[in-house]
Amino acid sequence: MGLVVQKYGGSSVADAASIRRVARRIVDTFNAGSQVAVVVSAMGDTTDELIDLAQQVSPKPPARELDMLLTAGERMSMALLAMAISDLGCEARSFTGSQAGVITDSAHGRARIIDVTPGRIQAALGDGAIPIVAGFQGVSQDTKDITTLGRGGSDTTAVALAAALQADVCEIYTDVDGIYSADPRIVPAARKLDRVTYEEMLELAASGAKVLHLRCVEYARRFNLPIHVRSSFSTNEGTWVVSDARDEDDVEQPIISGVAHDLNDAKVTVVGVPDRPGEAAAIFGTLADAGINLDMIVQNVSVADTGLTDVTFTCPRGDGERALSALRAVQATIGFADLRYDDAIAKVSLVGAGMRSHPGVSATFFRALADAGVNVEMISTSEIRISVVTRESQVTRAVGAVHTAFGLDSGSEAVVYGGTGR
Amino acid sequence: MGLVVQKYGGSSVADAASIRRVARRIVDTFNAGSQVAVVVSAMGDTTDELIDLAQQVSPKPPARELDMLLTAGERMSMALLAMAISDLGCEARSFTGSQAGVITDSAHGRARIIDVTPGRIQAALGDGAIPIVAGFQGVSQDTKDITTLGRGGSDTTAVALAAALQADVCEIYTDVDGIYSADPRIVPAARKLDRVTYEEMLELAASGAKVLHLRCVEYARRFNLPIHVRSSFSTNEGTWVVSDARDEDDVEQPIISGVAHDLNDAKVTVVGVPDRPGEAAAIFGTLADAGINLDMIVQNVSVADTGLTDVTFTCPRGDGERALSALRAVQATIGFADLRYDDAIAKVSLVGAGMRSHPGVSATFFRALADAGVNVEMISTSEIRISVVTRESQVTRAVGAVHTAFGLDSGSEAVVYGGTGR
Repeated sequence: MGLVVQKYGGSSVADAASIRRVARRIVDTFNAGSQVAVVVSAMGDTTDELIDLAQQVSPKPPARELDMLLTAGERMSMALLAMAISDLGCEARSFTGSQAGVITDSAHGRARIIDVTPGRIQAALGDGAIPIVAGFQGVSQDTKDITTLGRGGSDTTAVALAAALQADVCEIYTDVDGIYSADPRIVPAARKLDRVTYEEMLELAASGAKVLHLRCVEYARRFNLPIHVRSSFSTNEGTWVVSDARDEDDVEQPIISGVAHDLNDAKVTVVGVPDRPGEAAAIFGTLADAGINLDMIVQNVSVADTGLTDVTFTCPRGDGERALSALRAVQATIGFADLRYDDAIAKVSLVGAGMRSHPGVSATFFRALADAGVNVEMISTSEIRISVVTRESQVTRAVGAVHTAFGLDSGSEAVVYGGTGR
Repeated sequence: MGLVVQKYGGSSVADAASIRRVARRIVDTFNAGSQVAVVVSAMGDTTDELIDLAQQVSPKPPARELDMLLTAGERMSMALLAMAISDLGCEARSFTGSQAGVITDSAHGRARIIDVTPGRIQAALGDGAIPIVAGFQGVSQDTKDITTLGRGGSDTTAVALAAALQADVCEIYTDVDGIYSADPRIVPAARKLDRVTYEEMLELAASGAKVLHLRCVEYARRFNLPIHVRSSFSTNEGTWVVSDARDEDDVEQPIISGVAHDLNDAKVTVVGVPDRPGEAAAIFGTLADAGINLDMIVQNVSVADTGLTDVTFTCPRGDGERALSALRAVQATIGFADLRYDDAIAKVSLVGAGMRSHPGVSATFFRALADAGVNVEMISTSEIRISVVTRESQVTRAVGAVHTAFGLDSGSEAVVYGGTGR
């Protein structure tokens, strides 16, 4: 029946009762004839509690020591899960990231996986045991120090381990049923997707969908490893993330997968920039030096006669203050007139691999927004995505209108305008 | 100024404020010119809380997984302590038992240290950093699994690390000022000992003194490593545990170091044992097979004509039930008449290297007990110790009387009866 890697997040192992429930589920899979390796996060709020303890001891704890501290979290959950499995009559063995061969670089707090050498995991599987591996952690190749992988780390551990073990599937268990065509809290008619491609999932994750982290999807795509996102509270099929979303029986691939939104961005406008070569480079060089991640960038055409233009970009709200300070420091040198900051914005993105070959998608998209009275402030596109910036207050209306227009509401059909281009 | 290994117990690092206080103390030692390596236990009640969690998940957790779980405790305290030291401007690096090279056998929960290969600790010291090592834990030589050392484990880690580093001293920080001539809660006049020998400390620890565990003293004696037991709440000198307790200026070694007591024993009497060769062997063989640790053993002379005798022994109260069951199972085979169980007993022990060469100690000891109206039920002796079993209700009176008789009360002088023998 093959080899399955199952990953359980913190909310799935928040207390003793949850741990016993997850153990039951793992043992059921094992007894059904599969080899099972498990990756587990720290219990519930453990990581936040540990960070709080660190803050009480030192306002700026060294990153190496913070990683040492935080990795205690998965150590507890993995040992407890192994005990619970054992109590159900199967042998389970827990392994730290280091013991499981998760080799990383030395960037504490945001380490990247360099290699996975799962010799002890394979040995445990060979002995008929269920290995339980700590998510989120690894060991530095150079210094042999313990590292953590940062946000989305446990999902990445699971996918990386599954790839190294040549598993048939990596199951990511979470507290929702799968990936939805939109956030169900905003669009009650959103529907669960049966399949999405890696590319679509990457665009959805980058556009604000929270279920899977970018890094783990990138890793899965590189190794062509199927991910199955599903709920740890039911046995329903969830969403498969695969290289080709087309079902064998489907004649046609769906055009659009979903509508994502993101409320974490802020918009900065640099007003009155001299329209000369090198000015934009100076602005973006300054921002890069300050470590600001830019998302969308728009530069208007120079207004006749003034020789001045405006440059607008979006960045994470958390970086907004830093971006403004960095730009103010070079205002005299660059010679722009003013800075405007606005964080009451929302980014709304339409994602679908089918839009590549399907004209009329853009027209439908902008018509839907216009009909809903939503004002578009910025636009950016990729091969399989269209994103706009609008008012934060209009996000529900915008996402709902687009979701309906593309027939994504449960039980409805797509209506796409004809025409050329997107 | 040499190399100091400092060990801090759980009560010394129970919360963020305590950790900062301990960090201050370590940095003061470092700034005074010593190299410092630190061994730390889990914070306060962490270990008990983790055991409680394990019980919620499985009534009988596998020992390997329990060790994995419990070692999360020191991982937290050592990382937090390293952060606090760093906050005071010194570099600190935390290391797990495994990273520090604490190699053990595979007996989970009660592993013994086989070797210490502290390459990374020496490297940290060489870099001018303060290494912080997790107490109580190691890694199995055979299976590479994480192990714990059991009771007294952190003290043993500290002494073993100090020996491997050829440190000048191992300082054991605790919540008392040092080793006392008796438990100050029972004998208010008890005084702090400046120096005791390894042999005396071993006898005191085996006789119920709680401050240092037997294993760490044995380890220190083997490597002739001085231990300095002192309070983490003051800078007073504590008690030195060394090979020769004689101070250079002292003309004479003190005869008696202290009076220890133990309320954890139970007394079992096997009544009416046929007085034939092999009967005692059968009884003690049965107990050994059941894993019962015996302490004192007394066999009465056979009562005239009956051909029967009584055998009495003491064992830990926790093992009492198991001892009785094991013996009942062989009652028919051995043919004894009855079993009597009594756990309302106390063991009172007088310890002093000087009694080897000093006659009259026994006489003084038993005279003091008799004068205090204390009934003696069993007696056992070693080269430097006399122990008796008495009623638990008489323990305070017994310890106090002996303490006074040997001039151990603060400010008094010893009075020892003359005569031969002990």
